[in-house]
Amino acid sequence: MPSTLGVRGLFAANLTPLLPDLSIDTETLIAHCRWLLARGCHGIALFGTTGEGPSFSVAEKKAALDDLIAAGIPANTLMLGTGCSALPETVELTSHAVARGCCGVLTLPPFYFKRLGDDGLFRYFAELVQRVGDEKLRLYLYHIPQLSGVSFGLGLIERLLAAFPQVIAGIKDSSGDWSNTKAILENFPGFGTFTGWDPYLRDLLRLGGAGAISGMPNINPTGLRRLYETWAQPESDADHRDATRLIELVDAAPPTAGLRAVLAHHTGRESWLIRRPPLQPLDREQHDALIRAVGETGFTLPPPL
Amino acid sequence: MPSTLGVRGLFAANLTPLLPDLSIDTETLIAHCRWLLARGCHGIALFGTTGEGPSFSVAEKKAALDDLIAAGIPANTLMLGTGCSALPETVELTSHAVARGCCGVLTLPPFYFKRLGDDGLFRYFAELVQRVGDEKLRLYLYHIPQLSGVSFGLGLIERLLAAFPQVIAGIKDSSGDWSNTKAILENFPGFGTFTGWDPYLRDLLRLGGAGAISGMPNINPTGLRRLYETWAQPESDADHRDATRLIELVDAAPPTAGLRAVLAHHTGRESWLIRRPPLQPLDREQHDALIRAVGETGFTLPPPL
Repeated sequence: MPSTLGVRGLFAANLTPLLPDLSIDTETLIAHCRWLLARGCHGIALFGTTGEGPSFSVAEKKAALDDLIAAGIPANTLMLGTGCSALPETVELTSHAVARGCCGVLTLPPFYFKRLGDDGLFRYFAELVQRVGDEKLRLYLYHIPQLSGVSFGLGLIERLLAAFPQVIAGIKDSSGDWSNTKAILENFPGFGTFTGWDPYLRDLLRLGGAGAISGMPNINPTGLRRLYETWAQPESDADHRDATRLIELVDAAPPTAGLRAVLAHHTGRESWLIRRPPLQPLDREQHDALIRAVGETGFTLPPPL
Repeated sequence: MPSTLGVRGLFAANLTPLLPDLSIDTETLIAHCRWLLARGCHGIALFGTTGEGPSFSVAEKKAALDDLIAAGIPANTLMLGTGCSALPETVELTSHAVARGCCGVLTLPPFYFKRLGDDGLFRYFAELVQRVGDEKLRLYLYHIPQLSGVSFGLGLIERLLAAFPQVIAGIKDSSGDWSNTKAILENFPGFGTFTGWDPYLRDLLRLGGAGAISGMPNINPTGLRRLYETWAQPESDADHRDATRLIELVDAAPPTAGLRAVLAHHTGRESWLIRRPPLQPLDREQHDALIRAVGETGFTLPPPL
C-alpha cells in the first residue's frame, strides 16, 4: 500500500556549493537544482548531511530556500533539512519550509545529547508538530544514528505515527542497515520510507517503499531515475550494477567530498570543492584517484542544460 | 607558571531553569547566579552541557546573557557557551559575549560531523578567531568527546596556541580522563586548564591548573570554594571527601537531572525540574532516591541570600 500522505520518488540530497568566503554560492546552487530536476530527480532535499546542513545557520538555510523558489524551482519539489539541536530553531526552520510550500521537511533528532529515551524524543517531536501547528506539515524522520547519535526505533515511530498520523509522513533511513529499513517497511506499510543507499532502492520499492533520498543523484540523476522507474523489470540490472559500483567508489572517498570532486571535475565549477570548516575537500591525491577510478567505469554526468 | 591570559577559580556550569512553556525562567536564573557568586563561585559558565546549551537557540542565549548583565551580574564573572554546529552561529554568539565583556567563551567543537581531522578543526577555530576579530576574545576549548564526538588532542591544542597565543586561553577537560588532563597540564604550562570533575581539582591545582568549571557548584559552591582555596593544606581533605561523595551520588542520577532535583528540593522552585525536550527530569522514584541519598550524607545547600 503506497503512502497517500507524502511524496515518492528520487530525491537528490543536494550538495551545497560555496564561494571562497565560505558563503553559499546561490547561483551555482540554483543552476544545479534546475539540472537535477531536468535530468531525472523528482525532488531535492536541501541541507541534509550531504548538503552539510548542520554547518549552515538557520538564517542561511531560510535564505537559500527562498532564493531557489524565487529562481523558479517549484517549492513542492523541495524538502528542507530542519533538524537543529535546539527545538526553537527546528520550529523556526520547519515553519518556514511549510510556509514556503515545501513538500516536506527532513528532520534530524536533536544531536548533541546522547542516550536519550524515547519519551524525551517523542516529546521533542510532539512539541515541534504542535508549535508549527500547520496541517500542511509533512515530516520525514531522519535516521542517521552514526552521526546524530540518536535512533528512531520502531517503538518511537509507532508512537509518533499514532499521535500525528497526518503529519509524520515518512523516514529516511541512512543507517546503511538494510535489516532496519526492511523492518520499517514491514511494520509500517504505507509509511513513506526512503533509503539513503541506492543499492537498496530496488529491494525497497519491491516492499512498497517510497524511494531514495541520497547523495548519488547529484552526479547520476538520470541513471537512478531509470532505476526507480524500471525496478520491477530485468532491464534495471544494468542501472543497479552501475549505481552500486559508483556509490562504492564515491563512498570510499569519503562520500560528500567525493561527490563534490566528481561534480567539480565535470562542471569545472570550483564552488563544489569549497567546504565550510571543519569539513575539508579531498586532498589532491585522493581527488585524482577518485576521478581516475570513476573515469575507468565509463561513467559520465548527464549533459548540462 | 599560572596563566596570565585567562581567568582562574571555581566556575559553576550553570543549570538553566525553565517556565512551564519551556522558555527560560529569567528571574530564577538571575537569583541563582547572584547566590552562586555570593556563596563562593568566582564565576559562572552559562549554557555548557550542564546548562543544556545546545537545547537553546542563539537568540535565547544572547537574551539570557543580556538579562543577567542588566540585573547586575558582573559580565566579567560570566563565561558563555558559544559552540554551535554552524560556524556563523558560533561567531555570532562569541562576538556577542566579547562585546558584552564576558571573561571568556567556552566553545564546543562543531558536533554533528564525526571523524574530523585536525586540519579541519584548526581551520574552524581559525575562522572563528579571525571573524570575531577582537583582541579581547578569550577562548576556552570545550573537550567533552563523549557528547561532541570530537576531540581536542595535544597536537591540535599546540597548533591553536601557536597561531593565537593571545586568544586561546584554556581548556575545560570534561572527558573524565585524568591522564588526559595531566598530559595537557604537563605539555602546556601556563595554559588555563579547568577540570569538569571536582575530585580532580586538588591534583589539577597541584600541577598549576586554573580551576574547575563544573556542575556541582550549583549546589555546593561554598564547600568547593573552600576546597579551591585550601587544596595545598591537609584541612582540604574533608571538603575533597565530601565533594567526591556528592558528585558520585549526583552523577549516577544522571548528573544534570540530579542537580536539578537537589536544587528544586532545597529551593522549592519548580523551574529547576522543567527541562526542554528531548531531555527529561528524573522520574519520581529516581528523584526520591537521590534526595534521600544526598540527605543521608548530611549535606545541605548554603543558605539563601
